[in-house]
Amino acid sequence: MKVLALDTSSIVATVAVLDDEKLMGEYIINHKKTHSEKLMPMIEEILKSCEVSPKDIDVFAVALGPGSFTGLRIGLATIKAMAQALDKPVAGVSTLEGLAFNLVHCKGLICPIIDAQQDLVYTGLYQWHQELSKVMEEDVVSIEDLLDTLKSRKEEVIFLGDALEKFQEQITRELGDLAIFPPKIVTMPRASSIGELAREKVKKGELKKASEVLPVYMRKSQAEKQWEERNRG
Amino acid sequence: MKVLALDTSSIVATVAVLDDEKLMGEYIINHKKTHSEKLMPMIEEILKSCEVSPKDIDVFAVALGPGSFTGLRIGLATIKAMAQALDKPVAGVSTLEGLAFNLVHCKGLICPIIDAQQDLVYTGLYQWHQELSKVMEEDVVSIEDLLDTLKSRKEEVIFLGDALEKFQEQITRELGDLAIFPPKIVTMPRASSIGELAREKVKKGELKKASEVLPVYMRKSQAEKQWEERNRG
Repeated sequence: MKVLALDTSSIVATVAVLDDEKLMGEYIINHKKTHSEKLMPMIEEILKSCEVSPKDIDVFAVALGPGSFTGLRIGLATIKAMAQALDKPVAGVSTLEGLAFNLVHCKGLICPIIDAQQDLVYTGLYQWHQELSKVMEEDVVSIEDLLDTLKSRKEEVIFLGDALEKFQEQITRELGDLAIFPPKIVTMPRASSIGELAREKVKKGELKKASEVLPVYMRKSQAEKQWEERNRG
Repeated sequence: MKVLALDTSSIVATVAVLDDEKLMGEYIINHKKTHSEKLMPMIEEILKSCEVSPKDIDVFAVALGPGSFTGLRIGLATIKAMAQALDKPVAGVSTLEGLAFNLVHCKGLICPIIDAQQDLVYTGLYQWHQELSKVMEEDVVSIEDLLDTLKSRKEEVIFLGDALEKFQEQITRELGDLAIFPPKIVTMPRASSIGELAREKVKKGELKKASEVLPVYMRKSQAEKQWEERNRG
């Protein structure tokens, strides 16, 4: 079984091809957000290098969000178009779970934080036992509320995700030695993690038709909020 | 400071570009070993995608080995040629340490094993405290001797590296529940890990001139052994 996976939920564009045995190839670009220009050439490049044709792909995997609305739309549109054209199923994977999966078998709690603008973050809490398991449901919360929750747990927490840039200082101030910041090479989305989680979805029978797959925005866009505001008046 | 990193010590070809803040890009191909054909186009592709020119690179980083003799020669020749042409320093990183670095902040001992033919493996033992630290010196040993050593430690050991394919069953038989096998996406070389370790070498002032960099073979090649054998008689 071959999986093509991608994550465009942030500034990072990342694609990967996996087969039953291994990661065949992965390509990550973390430089300027021009997913609409870069994504298809990246997919073409990685498939060519792995000598895999689009019709050899059995499952199309995509990071569903939360994350950048535009980024998610580009990723989902691309994966759905390919899956629909080739009549293949789609595996939708949480962006937050994908990030947590970068820290394979790590000790302590894993807390991915993705910038949701203002003082909000998309977040969740995970931990490795034999497998990665969810400790706290994914949600969009203020950084203050998240840190209050984590402080009360009195456990080591390893942070990753793009909101670190904004909140690392505040996290250190609040949690002190309990906060761990891993090397930057693992703090961003990796399509290989999305692909590996997609394989688990295959085992659990959690695949969908291209037409059924929806992004997970978790909050309303600024445009929607303004529209509602205007129409309320 | 920008780092170009690569690892061609196994069937996997992998290149990455890092700057002070982040991993700018990474490209991994784990499909047929034609490093001599693939490596330069991969370097060109990743530099172009990151809008980095070779002359912008401050440090050239390479996996020194142990690993495939031919693979190492291709990687070293390439990095040394670029560094020498541009008069920039080289950071040589252990392939084994690079593998261990894939498992950021993981719990338990980390044991990379690389196929050294017959029943031999190149190996070492690592553990994360704040940083990755070495628990046992790198060496080439028989899988039996390695497993005896690990059994006596009575600790959980997480394995990775290309010799897993050959020895996973034997490891499970000998170590039982103490042996952990992570998802395949982290068991192979990643140039991002080589690049991150190279940055640590920069901090410690452990850079070399291109002309001083040597591969770490750890044992004699089959050809050398045969030559010695013939000349002894």
